[in-house]
Amino acid sequence: MNGKLIQIIFPDGRQKAFPQGATVEDIAGSISSSLKKKAVAGKVNGKLCDLRRAIHEDAALTIVTLDSDEGIDILRHTTAHVLAQAVKRIYGHVNFGVGPVIKNGFYYDMDLLENLSIDDLGKIEEQMQDIINENLDIQRVEVSREDAQKLFQNDPLKLELLKDIPESEKITIYKQGEFTDLCRGPHLPSTGYIKAFKLTNVSGAYWRGDSENKMLQRVYGAAFAKKQDLDRYLHFLDEAAERDHRKLGKALELFMFSEEAPGMPFYLPKGFIIRGELEAFLRELQRASGYEEVRTPFMMNQRLWEQSGHWDHYKENMYYSEVDHADFALKPMNCPGHMLIFKNKLRSYRDLPIRLAEFGQVHRHEFSGALNGMFRVRTFCQDDAHIYAAPSQIEDEIKEIMKLIDKVYSTFGFEYSIELSTRPEDSMGDDHLWEKAESALKRVLEDLNCDYTINEGDGAFYGPKIDFHIKDALNRSHQCATVQLDFQMPFKFDLHYVDDRGEKVRPVVIHRAVYGSLDRFFGILVEHFGGAFPVWLAPVQAKIVPVSQNHLDYAAHVEKVLKEAGIRVEIDDRDEKLGYKIRESQMNKIPYVLVAGDQEKSNNAVNVRKFGEKESETMLLKDFCSMIRHAVKERRLQHRL
Amino acid sequence: MNGKLIQIIFPDGRQKAFPQGATVEDIAGSISSSLKKKAVAGKVNGKLCDLRRAIHEDAALTIVTLDSDEGIDILRHTTAHVLAQAVKRIYGHVNFGVGPVIKNGFYYDMDLLENLSIDDLGKIEEQMQDIINENLDIQRVEVSREDAQKLFQNDPLKLELLKDIPESEKITIYKQGEFTDLCRGPHLPSTGYIKAFKLTNVSGAYWRGDSENKMLQRVYGAAFAKKQDLDRYLHFLDEAAERDHRKLGKALELFMFSEEAPGMPFYLPKGFIIRGELEAFLRELQRASGYEEVRTPFMMNQRLWEQSGHWDHYKENMYYSEVDHADFALKPMNCPGHMLIFKNKLRSYRDLPIRLAEFGQVHRHEFSGALNGMFRVRTFCQDDAHIYAAPSQIEDEIKEIMKLIDKVYSTFGFEYSIELSTRPEDSMGDDHLWEKAESALKRVLEDLNCDYTINEGDGAFYGPKIDFHIKDALNRSHQCATVQLDFQMPFKFDLHYVDDRGEKVRPVVIHRAVYGSLDRFFGILVEHFGGAFPVWLAPVQAKIVPVSQNHLDYAAHVEKVLKEAGIRVEIDDRDEKLGYKIRESQMNKIPYVLVAGDQEKSNNAVNVRKFGEKESETMLLKDFCSMIRHAVKERRLQHRL
Repeated sequence: MNGKLIQIIFPDGRQKAFPQGATVEDIAGSISSSLKKKAVAGKVNGKLCDLRRAIHEDAALTIVTLDSDEGIDILRHTTAHVLAQAVKRIYGHVNFGVGPVIKNGFYYDMDLLENLSIDDLGKIEEQMQDIINENLDIQRVEVSREDAQKLFQNDPLKLELLKDIPESEKITIYKQGEFTDLCRGPHLPSTGYIKAFKLTNVSGAYWRGDSENKMLQRVYGAAFAKKQDLDRYLHFLDEAAERDHRKLGKALELFMFSEEAPGMPFYLPKGFIIRGELEAFLRELQRASGYEEVRTPFMMNQRLWEQSGHWDHYKENMYYSEVDHADFALKPMNCPGHMLIFKNKLRSYRDLPIRLAEFGQVHRHEFSGALNGMFRVRTFCQDDAHIYAAPSQIEDEIKEIMKLIDKVYSTFGFEYSIELSTRPEDSMGDDHLWEKAESALKRVLEDLNCDYTINEGDGAFYGPKIDFHIKDALNRSHQCATVQLDFQMPFKFDLHYVDDRGEKVRPVVIHRAVYGSLDRFFGILVEHFGGAFPVWLAPVQAKIVPVSQNHLDYAAHVEKVLKEAGIRVEIDDRDEKLGYKIRESQMNKIPYVLVAGDQEKSNNAVNVRKFGEKESETMLLKDFCSMIRHAVKERRLQHRL
Repeated sequence: MNGKLIQIIFPDGRQKAFPQGATVEDIAGSISSSLKKKAVAGKVNGKLCDLRRAIHEDAALTIVTLDSDEGIDILRHTTAHVLAQAVKRIYGHVNFGVGPVIKNGFYYDMDLLENLSIDDLGKIEEQMQDIINENLDIQRVEVSREDAQKLFQNDPLKLELLKDIPESEKITIYKQGEFTDLCRGPHLPSTGYIKAFKLTNVSGAYWRGDSENKMLQRVYGAAFAKKQDLDRYLHFLDEAAERDHRKLGKALELFMFSEEAPGMPFYLPKGFIIRGELEAFLRELQRASGYEEVRTPFMMNQRLWEQSGHWDHYKENMYYSEVDHADFALKPMNCPGHMLIFKNKLRSYRDLPIRLAEFGQVHRHEFSGALNGMFRVRTFCQDDAHIYAAPSQIEDEIKEIMKLIDKVYSTFGFEYSIELSTRPEDSMGDDHLWEKAESALKRVLEDLNCDYTINEGDGAFYGPKIDFHIKDALNRSHQCATVQLDFQMPFKFDLHYVDDRGEKVRPVVIHRAVYGSLDRFFGILVEHFGGAFPVWLAPVQAKIVPVSQNHLDYAAHVEKVLKEAGIRVEIDDRDEKLGYKIRESQMNKIPYVLVAGDQEKSNNAVNVRKFGEKESETMLLKDFCSMIRHAVKERRLQHRL
């Protein structure tokens, strides 16, 4: 230190002089000891750096603490290094790939002889805790490319990563105790800063994500600033695992997948009932809102996909076939078919708006590694609709769609957020139409008192759009509904209608989906309800459990009455204990268990136990019947007695 | 004649001597002059010959008259020659291809410069009538191959046909007046025998049905023994043309086809409603009969189709795609998917029968020339079901299926005939099982008092089957429902269930379809009803016609009441004349037209006019409402007031 001073400017605009070479930590300490304690890194002129990095020139500085996302990311990154160090201590020879930060934690890819399983994670965690307790200093060292190559000469993965660092960039390594890693940083000052972590999973991962490369082992972990944050997250993971739709889909016999058709769902009888109810629900609303339903072919020829633009822009995601020596593609979207229907007849302004809806089965390619139960599939049913409207009708139409979406989502108890995406730079179409459309969309959102965010310039090139993100019971967000204005498709297909002066005019097309993908929405519902569907969706709405084999007759009577009322009901007529049968019905998450014994028979009643409740209540059969019919008809979310 | 006698045996066993060389006509005349008059040919020792053919040896003889199919065929064949002669007289240079007999008539393929149209047929008919009036003798002449080649040296088509006649066969030509044709015969004795014919159509046809060959012109005609038979047939043709589902489908806006997807129907909104009602109807019956509905992928991989046998036996009819570099095929049938569902879980005898149903969209290739509206398409929705049963359950299951089929067909007013096809020579599976299954099927048919015919040895190699042929309003027959036992599929997919002794047992599979193809059945219904659907199927069930613009309010009230009752209703609110609007509704075959004027308004009534009736009747709105609801609910065939 030569006594020279540098000027540090803080985010609030204040400025202060410090000795040249002061570290971020020194500066934080000069502000307050509590800030020094919380600080984990600095941001010098917008660039993150280690807490103990010395500053030699005037700079703008932000002290980074664990209260910020950037601070948490550094914590997670360091925890990944601690993981690597622990694995090296336990297994000895191991090479490391990359170890990045992800949402809620981190992972590290490693190449080692031993096959790690979830059972090994405890032992690794213990070693990690030891390293944390040792509170090893973490040091950043700049090295020459040659030195780095020498250092990692036995580690082909790191050598490959080293090659990717541009010549212009400094090469840095981080050391903590006996462990050294090639890394850009920044990191925590020492391992003792880590307070709350947990290893969560282990899986295979190809080196650099390429299936031609070696398969490495990827260990996942979670890390948070405080133990209670970690606990909350672990609880969420447990909850999510409990509700995993793939697990529940199997346990409740809703759907299956097969190696003979990867990514293409098979609906089992119980799942089909739910799917059918979803379809019927939306169909009912659509009919009431003046939609007309159509059905278009599952594949069409190359010429049509060229005309629609899919052949140029969507080729990689489509499946192909050949018909009469001509190239055909399975439809990835329903739009072109609906355009042909619109064009099939001369349309007048009096016919508009025309609302064509289709539960259209589309096929879209996904990489096999990306497939994920119902959440990511290769074929799904889209609740698609195209509305052909005069420009002056856009506002009313959007409003009606918004109401429809609200009705659907609130029926499932979903809250949702709305995003409006406006004109992008590469947009097509008339300025005036864009302005008119955007202000119409905004006016609708405001008229309906919707909270929404604007994604400036994020609209499709063919028109602005509104996206809807629903929040499920675990507070996870899923993009489902979309409403998109399209000025482009009417040109491509040369659509027109005759206006009131007898002139040909282009309609606007509104693309719209509410569920989005019926299959994915179904998966979301399974997790949202944890398999305990509201009674209108439940595949079996009530289970009749006779107290003994002497009560089969009365149970059959109850079944008959309920079936005639249109209720999906089953009898458990096995000669098993009452308690066992009730428990099994609860495991199957059946909304109502109806116990039928002597008392019930003599009163023409049933003893009703709601799913998830310990108390039961005796009701007249006819009262139960009208109650459940009502709940189904109203599509009630709660099954009240 | 040398006075020698020959013995002629008649079909009834009687025997009589005739002079050697007597013609068939002589012999007919010796029996009765009326027989001589009716006779057109003979059948000597089982072989057809001309009426004026001389018989030189003892023989069995049948006199062929126009009362028999063989006689009518000869008449039609000769009419084809008369057609050719007439065309030659009118157009001069013309070459002829083949001129065979078909159902109700004949056609002749011809190569001539002039493009024939339907408008030319009258002129040709007149010339044909002249030839008939000339009553030209028709003579059979045996010729040497060389002479025949010389005779037809300018006629390349006939020379090609000549080449196909085997060396062993006699070559014969038939002459009538100036016209000569290469022909095996037999023919009528003279052109005057033809009493009732009509040319019906002209179209293009490739020489020998090969699209690589030249396109010829094919002229179609009808010919009958009597004018009233012809008239009846022509009336049927008119009726059929009126009811042509392609024509009505367009006029009533039910469906469309596009060049972008040949053979793949687009359901327009009105057609979709009918399709939806058909689906809902069967779904309702199936649920009541214990079926469970599933939904399986639209394509699956090669391995599965190999396992099912489709890859070997159905390859030509399938469409293919590629997924992850593996061959996939679009499903032509739903069976394999259902087998995977059965196998997805351990099944117990207590679970049987398991009835899996799917409205499954299948794709099957058809030649473009074979496509025919909804009757022959490349993709259709099959109302498929597979029932997994223990052998002892076959009988009950078949019985239930028969009842279901009867319920469906009688709802549409279809009569039907039943065919039982039994074990073929190349059958697979256990003798005992076949016997058991066949006798079970027979017993079911007899228990239910069904008339049926047996097609001995015509079953599938995997099991016996029952086919159902429905008769439409024009008495045309369509094969729709099928019930097939399958002992083979359970082996191929190694299916089993656990019986009551804990042993693994193979189930029997019953394949079953009621509509067969929903799309084809829809086409049949369009023709059967001539577009005037029963009210439950009608896309618009009632049209409200306000008397004037002053009655729009009351019309809107009527609409609201009916819509709330679930009735599909439209208002014709155009400012047009009442009569015009009523006529238009009738043209659209809407079951009820409801006129709403002052009187109706003051009585809360509507003036109801049933489709096809001239009289109308005023009813209280609430009475009309309950009447139409009842008709819909009961799926009534007739709309009674």
